Amino acid sequence: MEHPENSEEYKGLVVNKGIEQPSSVNPYLKRKPKKRQLSVAEFVDGITKGDVTILSQAVTLVESVKPEHQSVAQEVIEKCLPYSGNSIRVGISGVPGAGKSTSIDVFGLHVLEKGGKLAVLAIDPSSERSKGSILGDKTRMEQLSVHPKSFIRPSPSAGSLGGVARKTRETIILCEAAGFDKIFVETVGVGQSETAVHSMVDFFLLIQLAGTGDELQGIKRGIMEMADGIVINKADGDNLERAKLAATQFRNALHLFPAPESGWTPKVLTYSGFYNIGVKEVWDMVYEYICFVKENGYFEYRRNEQSKYWMYESINEQLRDSFYHNPKIEAMLQKKEQQVLSGNLTSFIAAKSLLDTYFEDLKM
Amino acid sequence: MEHPENSEEYKGLVVNKGIEQPSSVNPYLKRKPKKRQLSVAEFVDGITKGDVTILSQAVTLVESVKPEHQSVAQEVIEKCLPYSGNSIRVGISGVPGAGKSTSIDVFGLHVLEKGGKLAVLAIDPSSERSKGSILGDKTRMEQLSVHPKSFIRPSPSAGSLGGVARKTRETIILCEAAGFDKIFVETVGVGQSETAVHSMVDFFLLIQLAGTGDELQGIKRGIMEMADGIVINKADGDNLERAKLAATQFRNALHLFPAPESGWTPKVLTYSGFYNIGVKEVWDMVYEYICFVKENGYFEYRRNEQSKYWMYESINEQLRDSFYHNPKIEAMLQKKEQQVLSGNLTSFIAAKSLLDTYFEDLKM
Repeated sequence: MEHPENSEEYKGLVVNKGIEQPSSVNPYLKRKPKKRQLSVAEFVDGITKGDVTILSQAVTLVESVKPEHQSVAQEVIEKCLPYSGNSIRVGISGVPGAGKSTSIDVFGLHVLEKGGKLAVLAIDPSSERSKGSILGDKTRMEQLSVHPKSFIRPSPSAGSLGGVARKTRETIILCEAAGFDKIFVETVGVGQSETAVHSMVDFFLLIQLAGTGDELQGIKRGIMEMADGIVINKADGDNLERAKLAATQFRNALHLFPAPESGWTPKVLTYSGFYNIGVKEVWDMVYEYICFVKENGYFEYRRNEQSKYWMYESINEQLRDSFYHNPKIEAMLQKKEQQVLSGNLTSFIAAKSLLDTYFEDLKM
Repeated sequence: MEHPENSEEYKGLVVNKGIEQPSSVNPYLKRKPKKRQLSVAEFVDGITKGDVTILSQAVTLVESVKPEHQSVAQEVIEKCLPYSGNSIRVGISGVPGAGKSTSIDVFGLHVLEKGGKLAVLAIDPSSERSKGSILGDKTRMEQLSVHPKSFIRPSPSAGSLGGVARKTRETIILCEAAGFDKIFVETVGVGQSETAVHSMVDFFLLIQLAGTGDELQGIKRGIMEMADGIVINKADGDNLERAKLAATQFRNALHLFPAPESGWTPKVLTYSGFYNIGVKEVWDMVYEYICFVKENGYFEYRRNEQSKYWMYESINEQLRDSFYHNPKIEAMLQKKEQQVLSGNLTSFIAAKSLLDTYFEDLKM
């Protein structure tokens, strides 16, 4: 490792080289250990030994936008890759108010009863604006947040959905390498982020509420069709009948969709997160699914497809980034769009002139 | 209009200017009109005058893959753009066997009763392999195919869905400039092509059949949610009750989705294409929708969004094309994918090394 004085960031007292530095009386040195970044080998060693502090630091690197952090992070992830994969990954989605936090809390305790370790991650591309609308406050998961076998990490907050999702996916690899054999990925039920979560988990669980009558529940396009299981929360007390009715409605609606590729028939169950009723049944369903798809080969197939998906997704996202963040394109994009909107230019000709400019610029 | 001799394409006998040419005795002149490509001005003039032969030729140019045809086509489209837009564009989808052709035949006759002209186009990205599985055979629309006010054009067969869709979208512009004020875009109900059609029409009509019981109807993910109207065909004779039941099921299922952006509540109707029952009601619904969205401003808003969508879609597709058809990328893509699948490389690092190669290559 580089000596502090050699590093450009070092702004403090210059000590002559070769002289043994006093242990901890020098205030500059006191601060150093926090700043010193672990080496790749140290990260990998710590993670694979299950050191949660080092895991946390590695995730922070993954989430960092600094190129020097990213390059270390990528090396760490790559070295952790052979130790990853041995887990059940469950995506958990639901509209705000469906009781996701309470549910994840009881779900988490339930799966930990069987042993193992649980990591709870999140994808919330809106968290930058809302300063972490989900999982920002660990105390919302009262029991899990103090559980010795759980690791809770809020959604990475930087950048596009693609970027946020990639970071969460990479965090899954690190968590698995650290021995976490159950991974929950929470997301808020508002659209695009579900697709991202769906493409990194084995089972997609959708939490719903019994609505008032047959009224809409704010499920966005396509989300219901991604669900391997739909669970109606708050099936307790006065609400029990309504919850059962909602379950029937969802079952009927699911019939209208084609059978999922997995061969699994999505189930609809009711439960109460608050009163801890029906939680076992929810997880029996998840385990049943995992057995089912491990047996028919879909589990392996799907994970492979997901890896491919993320490779192509990364490529396509970065191709778009390169184009739309090109200064010349940024300068002319609005104008072209206006010309298209005013009917003076076809969409295709506008696209062509932008692309010509871009490729010309890349050559220079 | 430019005189043929002045045009560069003119390869025939040179006749002195100012001399009246013999009508049709010269055999060379007889053949020439077929071979000689019209000038851009001639195309635009012919199209805007409603000349269906010239419209047909222009569409052929749009569909051509030859660059010289494409450049003429783009000029023609651009010049036609100011004359376009004044139409109702309806996307019509349904699984094979739902009776799309018969339905479009009676729907077409119905809308033509009110006057105006109807163009029936199609998007079927599979048609290259299947040699035109939809609309390939005009005779499937017995009455429309001989109707003087209709223009039926099979799906362009070349290339990717994006390419096919773009050509259909450009054909819409030409048809509208030629005075066609009703545009049907047919597609087969198998997934992605619906999204493409949905993004170029004002109303998306989904044709369904009453299934046997509550069984699945092969509707792909997300298609039902795009529908502004679902119509159950073959609601006649013994099948009437089943059709009504299916309609109820679809209505219930639609309730589970959020209200569309348009503010319109999608309707579910039954009809019989074969016996021509309930056809008026289907089109009353379409017209009601059009009035509704013209009044609340969504009609205009949506068309603008579609223009933007196609500009960005064109850009993104061509960015991807440039990357994936790059010889160096083609040479290494499979290997990288394999490394990702075997767990030796993260998706992101594989993507990065491919992108580095690509951008390096563009500079050379």
